[in-house]
Amino acid sequence: LRKQRQDPPVVHDLKVSLEEILVGSSKKMKISRKRLNLDGRSIRNEEKILTVDIKKGWKEGTKITFPKEGDETGNNVPADVVFVLKDKPHPQFKRDGANLIYIAKISLREALCGCSISVPTLEHKDVSMGFTDVIKPNTTRRIHGKGLPHPKHPTQRGDIVVNFDIRFPDRLSPHTREKIRQYLPS
Amino acid sequence: LRKQRQDPPVVHDLKVSLEEILVGSSKKMKISRKRLNLDGRSIRNEEKILTVDIKKGWKEGTKITFPKEGDETGNNVPADVVFVLKDKPHPQFKRDGANLIYIAKISLREALCGCSISVPTLEHKDVSMGFTDVIKPNTTRRIHGKGLPHPKHPTQRGDIVVNFDIRFPDRLSPHTREKIRQYLPS
Repeated sequence: LRKQRQDPPVVHDLKVSLEEILVGSSKKMKISRKRLNLDGRSIRNEEKILTVDIKKGWKEGTKITFPKEGDETGNNVPADVVFVLKDKPHPQFKRDGANLIYIAKISLREALCGCSISVPTLEHKDVSMGFTDVIKPNTTRRIHGKGLPHPKHPTQRGDIVVNFDIRFPDRLSPHTREKIRQYLPS
Repeated sequence: LRKQRQDPPVVHDLKVSLEEILVGSSKKMKISRKRLNLDGRSIRNEEKILTVDIKKGWKEGTKITFPKEGDETGNNVPADVVFVLKDKPHPQFKRDGANLIYIAKISLREALCGCSISVPTLEHKDVSMGFTDVIKPNTTRRIHGKGLPHPKHPTQRGDIVVNFDIRFPDRLSPHTREKIRQYLPS
């Protein structure tokens, strides 16, 4: 009896949105594979649905393995089928562990003179934040508990971390420049 | 006759300043090692000077090997002695390939109203640069040919790349804020 070796794993990316990471998700993935017929020699192509349960807060790179769901050839151990979690790009957030990074674009005038901004959340319920102090380029503000669940403690959630992209004017007229020079501290 | 195996290499960091990378340098490195006496059994400690020639533009991580300058024990092939180039931190520049990154600190007023800055060079001859346009946070300016030599073409040099760290005021008085709001474009 020859010892059978297992084929190397078949790896698929599994794209998951941040909204799905927030609440958890169950995804049905169709795979196609070769299976041995009952005669023990001929091969058929078969499709199978694998159900992948994505738990709240799972990190990008998490692997879910389905043992021996790969091709059968008659003289192998079928490969494991492995799904690797990939974050779908989100239009408003970047993930940083359990935190969500949000970049608020504000004008230089807003940064200096105060402003109020509206920060989106994954629950699609905006949070408004008001600022009266000067917002410097590396200022961050946090909205507590509106990030993603911690994978090991899914009842706890990270924060939304607000960063600021401060838009400068392209140019100033000589008159404006003179006034700014007069009023801004050196 | 037993086949002798070589000891694993003895690795030393070799700290080199950017000024030395600019012009090349020759460094005398004192090592101490065990050598076999003429009787073929007893061992003495010996110091030796190894001269490391550092060529213009060499990158951090460059390795210089002195074969078989390690300890003799009588039944080994002495290890190679290897020096690995490390950049000495420089107070004004960071290296980026053949370019030198310089961060100019300017006030927000200077960024908006124009300024002139003095940029240091490795030759200790400052270059002055004047700005009349608005300097935005990600603006860069280059001083051509004032960087480090390219290791493969040492007659060519990279650039000094000037980045800007724009200092915002900590706070504005209500009066100033009103004036800024009036004059800065929204």
